Amino acid sequence: MKKIIVINGPNLNMLGVREPNIYGSQTLDSINEAIKQYAITKGFECEFYQSNCEGDLVSKIQTVRDEYAGAIINAGAYTHYSLAIKDAIALADKPFVEVHMSNVHAREEFRKTSVISDVCHGSICGFGAGSYILAVKAIAGLIYNLQ
Amino acid sequence: MKKIIVINGPNLNMLGVREPNIYGSQTLDSINEAIKQYAITKGFECEFYQSNCEGDLVSKIQTVRDEYAGAIINAGAYTHYSLAIKDAIALADKPFVEVHMSNVHAREEFRKTSVISDVCHGSICGFGAGSYILAVKAIAGLIYNLQ
Amino acid sequence: MKKIIVINGPNLNMLGVREPNIYGSQTLDSINEAIKQYAITKGFECEFYQSNCEGDLVSKIQTVRDEYAGAIINAGAYTHYSLAIKDAIALADKPFVEVHMSNVHAREEFRKTSVISDVCHGSICGFGAGSYILAVKAIAGLIYNLQ
Amino acid sequence: MKKIIVINGPNLNMLGVREPNIYGSQTLDSINEAIKQYAITKGFECEFYQSNCEGDLVSKIQTVRDEYAGAIINAGAYTHYSLAIKDAIALADKPFVEVHMSNVHAREEFRKTSVISDVCHGSICGFGAGSYILAVKAIAGLIYNLQ
Amino acid sequence: MKKIIVINGPNLNMLGVREPNIYGSQTLDSINEAIKQYAITKGFECEFYQSNCEGDLVSKIQTVRDEYAGAIINAGAYTHYSLAIKDAIALADKPFVEVHMSNVHAREEFRKTSVISDVCHGSICGFGAGSYILAVKAIAGLIYNLQ
Amino acid sequence: MKKIIVINGPNLNMLGVREPNIYGSQTLDSINEAIKQYAITKGFECEFYQSNCEGDLVSKIQTVRDEYAGAIINAGAYTHYSLAIKDAIALADKPFVEVHMSNVHAREEFRKTSVISDVCHGSICGFGAGSYILAVKAIAGLIYNLQ
Amino acid sequence: MKKIIVINGPNLNMLGVREPNIYGSQTLDSINEAIKQYAITKGFECEFYQSNCEGDLVSKIQTVRDEYAGAIINAGAYTHYSLAIKDAIALADKPFVEVHMSNVHAREEFRKTSVISDVCHGSICGFGAGSYILAVKAIAGLIYNLQ
Amino acid sequence: MKKIIVINGPNLNMLGVREPNIYGSQTLDSINEAIKQYAITKGFECEFYQSNCEGDLVSKIQTVRDEYAGAIINAGAYTHYSLAIKDAIALADKPFVEVHMSNVHAREEFRKTSVISDVCHGSICGFGAGSYILAVKAIAGLIYNLQ
Amino acid sequence: MKKIIVINGPNLNMLGVREPNIYGSQTLDSINEAIKQYAITKGFECEFYQSNCEGDLVSKIQTVRDEYAGAIINAGAYTHYSLAIKDAIALADKPFVEVHMSNVHAREEFRKTSVISDVCHGSICGFGAGSYILAVKAIAGLIYNLQ
Amino acid sequence: MKKIIVINGPNLNMLGVREPNIYGSQTLDSINEAIKQYAITKGFECEFYQSNCEGDLVSKIQTVRDEYAGAIINAGAYTHYSLAIKDAIALADKPFVEVHMSNVHAREEFRKTSVISDVCHGSICGFGAGSYILAVKAIAGLIYNLQ
Amino acid sequence: MKKIIVINGPNLNMLGVREPNIYGSQTLDSINEAIKQYAITKGFECEFYQSNCEGDLVSKIQTVRDEYAGAIINAGAYTHYSLAIKDAIALADKPFVEVHMSNVHAREEFRKTSVISDVCHGSICGFGAGSYILAVKAIAGLIYNLQ
Amino acid sequence: MKKIIVINGPNLNMLGVREPNIYGSQTLDSINEAIKQYAITKGFECEFYQSNCEGDLVSKIQTVRDEYAGAIINAGAYTHYSLAIKDAIALADKPFVEVHMSNVHAREEFRKTSVISDVCHGSICGFGAGSYILAVKAIAGLIYNLQ
Repeated sequence: MKKIIVINGPNLNMLGVREPNIYGSQTLDSINEAIKQYAITKGFECEFYQSNCEGDLVSKIQTVRDEYAGAIINAGAYTHYSLAIKDAIALADKPFVEVHMSNVHAREEFRKTSVISDVCHGSICGFGAGSYILAVKAIAGLIYNLQ
Repeated sequence: MKKIIVINGPNLNMLGVREPNIYGSQTLDSINEAIKQYAITKGFECEFYQSNCEGDLVSKIQTVRDEYAGAIINAGAYTHYSLAIKDAIALADKPFVEVHMSNVHAREEFRKTSVISDVCHGSICGFGAGSYILAVKAIAGLIYNLQ
Repeated sequence: MKKIIVINGPNLNMLGVREPNIYGSQTLDSINEAIKQYAITKGFECEFYQSNCEGDLVSKIQTVRDEYAGAIINAGAYTHYSLAIKDAIALADKPFVEVHMSNVHAREEFRKTSVISDVCHGSICGFGAGSYILAVKAIAGLIYNLQ
Repeated sequence: MKKIIVINGPNLNMLGVREPNIYGSQTLDSINEAIKQYAITKGFECEFYQSNCEGDLVSKIQTVRDEYAGAIINAGAYTHYSLAIKDAIALADKPFVEVHMSNVHAREEFRKTSVISDVCHGSICGFGAGSYILAVKAIAGLIYNLQ
Repeated sequence: MKKIIVINGPNLNMLGVREPNIYGSQTLDSINEAIKQYAITKGFECEFYQSNCEGDLVSKIQTVRDEYAGAIINAGAYTHYSLAIKDAIALADKPFVEVHMSNVHAREEFRKTSVISDVCHGSICGFGAGSYILAVKAIAGLIYNLQ
Repeated sequence: MKKIIVINGPNLNMLGVREPNIYGSQTLDSINEAIKQYAITKGFECEFYQSNCEGDLVSKIQTVRDEYAGAIINAGAYTHYSLAIKDAIALADKPFVEVHMSNVHAREEFRKTSVISDVCHGSICGFGAGSYILAVKAIAGLIYNLQ
Repeated sequence: MKKIIVINGPNLNMLGVREPNIYGSQTLDSINEAIKQYAITKGFECEFYQSNCEGDLVSKIQTVRDEYAGAIINAGAYTHYSLAIKDAIALADKPFVEVHMSNVHAREEFRKTSVISDVCHGSICGFGAGSYILAVKAIAGLIYNLQ
Repeated sequence: MKKIIVINGPNLNMLGVREPNIYGSQTLDSINEAIKQYAITKGFECEFYQSNCEGDLVSKIQTVRDEYAGAIINAGAYTHYSLAIKDAIALADKPFVEVHMSNVHAREEFRKTSVISDVCHGSICGFGAGSYILAVKAIAGLIYNLQ
Repeated sequence: MKKIIVINGPNLNMLGVREPNIYGSQTLDSINEAIKQYAITKGFECEFYQSNCEGDLVSKIQTVRDEYAGAIINAGAYTHYSLAIKDAIALADKPFVEVHMSNVHAREEFRKTSVISDVCHGSICGFGAGSYILAVKAIAGLIYNLQ
Repeated sequence: MKKIIVINGPNLNMLGVREPNIYGSQTLDSINEAIKQYAITKGFECEFYQSNCEGDLVSKIQTVRDEYAGAIINAGAYTHYSLAIKDAIALADKPFVEVHMSNVHAREEFRKTSVISDVCHGSICGFGAGSYILAVKAIAGLIYNLQ
Repeated sequence: MKKIIVINGPNLNMLGVREPNIYGSQTLDSINEAIKQYAITKGFECEFYQSNCEGDLVSKIQTVRDEYAGAIINAGAYTHYSLAIKDAIALADKPFVEVHMSNVHAREEFRKTSVISDVCHGSICGFGAGSYILAVKAIAGLIYNLQ
Repeated sequence: MKKIIVINGPNLNMLGVREPNIYGSQTLDSINEAIKQYAITKGFECEFYQSNCEGDLVSKIQTVRDEYAGAIINAGAYTHYSLAIKDAIALADKPFVEVHMSNVHAREEFRKTSVISDVCHGSICGFGAGSYILAVKAIAGLIYNLQ
């Protein structure tokens, strides 16, 4: 079983509390549990990391190169300006899938710009917690050639 | 079994021929066949429509309101400027999932702008034919509350 | 009695269904009937054309030059980008009145730009179906010098 | 009989003198007389106000809330930058119709921007003195539900 | 006791009537009364001026140089474009405090630009009538070095 | 003898009627006849296609890949925004020459932008019907290495 | 002897007091006196007008058409945005010379834009009170063909 | 007594050392002491937090929701780009007052943009250490309805 | 036999050496020889001028007015910014044809802007040395009305 | 008698020939003669320099520092982009007066930008050959304090 | 011997691994060793700091004021947006030299903007590890006046 | 011993005279002498060229290809717009080092843009005459692999 990692950025630790009309009422822990169970069915052991700190996210992303088969990243607000995270993803040489729970294109103007999309393999947004599940399936397609 | 429709825009009839390094060597027919089979496992009867003509796409999208439970749309180049298609999706009142085979964010500048993202429920890009499969799963989540 | 034509663009065939809070609950047919009756009082035989297809709209507009005394056009979303329609109006050499049912200036940013305003004789927006009626009166003023 | 007011901004007192190829050779007084007569046929007593001073226009617009059933405004050059007039219209809570004699979209670039369109009920431009007449009819439609 | 002046721009005479959800239901007079009482506690005699006219505001601001120890200004919509008011403040050589009742940064885009902020000593916005009170305290700090 | 095709976009069917001071008084048929004769002298059988419909133009361009040695395209107003046509040209893998009768750079601002220039082999503009003749010669140079 | 008028806009009544390092220490009255004397030597009776109010400036400019042979205008801060003043100058049909005492191009960015330059006959800036003197000479050249 | 918190961002720990002509010569500790004393007079227990790290600031702001009645924030340079801090403030559901010691509008261009203003209740800038004091008073007005 | 001139700008003397993958391996002399021979067949004596110096190019272009029937110009990098060359062409009153060997629209962004296109009669780009040959033919069409 | 120099840039040697409706029918020599005579009356010996070459203009401007009391410059098209000329003027430490014969603000957009205005003492435009005469008078005011 | 410090930002700890075609195959440690040896020859004891965290970099930069004679900084991706780092450098009052290993101007658009260049003494980029060596030499020139 | 060349652009011949606070009081000759001496220690014979003329600079740069091992270029104001110089450097196929004496990023906005950086090997700015010395060292590193 290969290992993948789900990396969540700033304020995603507040899921369940933060604007539930947009992000739903599930906590990050319960979402992670669901991802973990689904990942197993696709042949992945799934680890999780969340940080509000850009630098810590960079450091964790740097470990993907050697320790994981792929990664799912919801960089939160850093999506829109963290070129440090962009550079970190670019040097990983492993597939990253960009994920957003909300449809970022239907919200404030600034949420429409992602500086990391072009260094990720693909992007999924708008399906709430389901976005992560789809990303696991996507990564299974990329690595195991599973439909 | 509910009906969904997969709508493809201009030049997608040329799949297999068009820049295979970007779009792969599968034809649209073979991709559609795979989508159809997968959709059945998710409880959907799946129909397909492709046109190079913006107006015909608008007319087909107008039928989603009454005839389909949801739709998957790859509007091709119209993604970037067809406000007519945007308006048509907006009046459907059914979930649309925007799909792109390539990672549009890693190509030419003009491909980064989608005028339809904000009227779709969510977006998936970068997984080749797999993007459509993920969209079927996404739409199943939205309609049947399936994981 | 001179002939005029009312040309409606994409998605206006969905009037009554499409966002009734913005566009009202009247269908295009019932609006057209009201326009026809009013036009007679101003001395016009009034014809109607609707299409979702930019090219068909261009072709119809090309007929105004030889077959109509003037035209009323609601180009729908094409208003904002169809330079092909703009060129077609410019070569008609007959008065066109641009019409919008909603106040396009009070909605999304993209609706504020019209590429056809400068080749039309004048513009009327914001009065629902009444915008068409006003346009008939305007065209009567231009052609019959009626108040 | 309800009262409406026609408010004209800077340099419209010079009609008849100012660029007659664009604005025609009628004076403001003769235009106003024609509007008054037409307004009576629609059930309105019509008053008139013209000023070159932004502040005086603001003050007059503030009276619409309590003293008039609606207003027609040609803000002249202030159309393009007077946010003070915009705010005044917004607080009136009565229908305003924006009017221009010339087709402002077919002239200098700066005349294409109106900062007041979005706080008016609708806009009419391009029909010379006829634009005011159409506005009276529009306002009759809004208030008396007349065609 | 030193004299200060509170200068209010266009449409602020309509407080209590104008969009009460944004500006509250107090009239300008009642707000002024509260300011006056508070100012006395800080050692100021407080005068008040309101005008809808940019030129009159300029003229009044020009008197600050010789007649007041400082000024509080809410330039209303002129905040966003009146370079004439900006120049008048700049030549006063007395501290001006810019005040807004609403949080101008959380409203329309155009309200985010102030052309006078850089010639004022400081700015306070978002606290309703309280913004003026805070400005009095601020000006007391500047002039009497009071906390 | 190899086959080439001349593809004309919207409103070019109106040549002779449309702004003769810009486009001359020749009809499209007479221009096509002249092109045909000249093409024979360069060793080409020349076919012609005109449509006002973006989608039909896309479909015709898709046939170039298999049926023609090269193509000459005057996309009319679609030149300035049709990314669908751009994509269709890009997948043809045959030389396209972009042609305009007027000097598009000396007219309205919007005519200066071509979204298809970079996927064509070269561009020729400003020589009236002569632009097409030059394009035939250019394509002969590319295919037969003729001067 | 023909009559000309020198029109000064907002804050120019504060000359001598306002930023003397930029505008010098002469008052407007003493500058006007010098202009008047010089004008006589060029065959002009010279009148003067200053106002802080845009509307009053517009009204005065409207009189130039019938009452003066030409005008010199320093519109102060209104230079940068008053389209009402621009329109007023345009309808005068008499030569206007735009004047600035300071070199507006060497100061803040916003002072580099003049919305009235293109409707004036010419512009002179940077020579302090001398700019007005030069403008008188310029207007003498235009009207009397004097060197 | 309710608790509030004063949150300071990067480089504010260097107060007293950093550009004293702009920020004054008081250290952050002495400013905090003054704030604390003043807060008590308004009925608040006041805590303090400073960090150079965006992520730590985000984490601290997340605690405001449950642990404080309100907050005062000087986000330093993060003011201009930290969307992560913006999101954190937005989910707090407690009043935040944005504070700057200097008049940020009178300095470099980049300091004029605040990405957090629109999620704060109000903003105060330009009064040195006094800005914090005013913010305490403002927050007292919001929470205790004190003048 | 009329005289025409081919004017080449900066770095075109390096043809054959400069990026041969873009510009081919022919030297300017051998291209000029081919142009000369072709020009004779069209009834032109052809002269040639190359300079790296903008001023010398301006001076040579000034001679076209009196000494040549027309000109072909490849202004090299000056194409993108030399308004001095633009002015010189504009005063020539003889037909200029703008030429580029490469398809400038398919290269760096800055090469897409030509400041001289609008003062030339027409433009030809993308056909290598063939662009010059086509330009000779174009100029023959303009002057001798030759096909 | 002090020496001044009049420096003319590209294409001004073509005066009399170049667009006489804009620039008049006088040659540069006859204009220079008039300037020379007028300069004597103001106490100046006047020299003249014209070049189409930016570098030669730079070199000549460099001599102003040591050899002239001031300079009048009409940089022609270089006005709009020559930062080299700007730097040369800036190091002269002598007054430069920028001159244009036409009203550059009433022509093409690109003529509205001058990169040298801010390093000149002042600017004069729109008075034909008279602009130079006014500049001599201006420079006399600066150097001899003459009115 | 004075102390200097070399500060490296995010992802520079990955040197040797990260895109070796751009950054070379040396690790940061081996580069640092070379810098240290060279620094000794210039009379400096050299310390090293690397962090992925913007806040930690800010804190370290704050120590330069008191503990180092100067600093060399490669802020990695933070170069392009970290105003917090910019502020920290500005308050150091010691010379900083900005360094990049790659030629940032020849890569992606976003790498061309440095928000810290203007607060550094100078910049060096494009020489790989050699950029650091040159920076040591530069700082020796600044501090010891060594060539 | 290999030959390198130091190329200086417009106004650098005025060093010592031009703004000494920015550029220092050394003349170009004395700087060149120092460069020459230092270059010898690195194994280079060093030649020098200065011109105010863009075209002459282009011509000299064209010689680098065949006659020099590398070049150091300070293009002065041409740095910011000379695409002709950019093209010339690009075809040299020898390493160019861009040099500026002042920190161009800390001066006027226009000095921040270099159109030649991306075709040079690297850039050095801000160290006065020392920038040239560092460039010699840099070029030695590139050619002789010297530290």
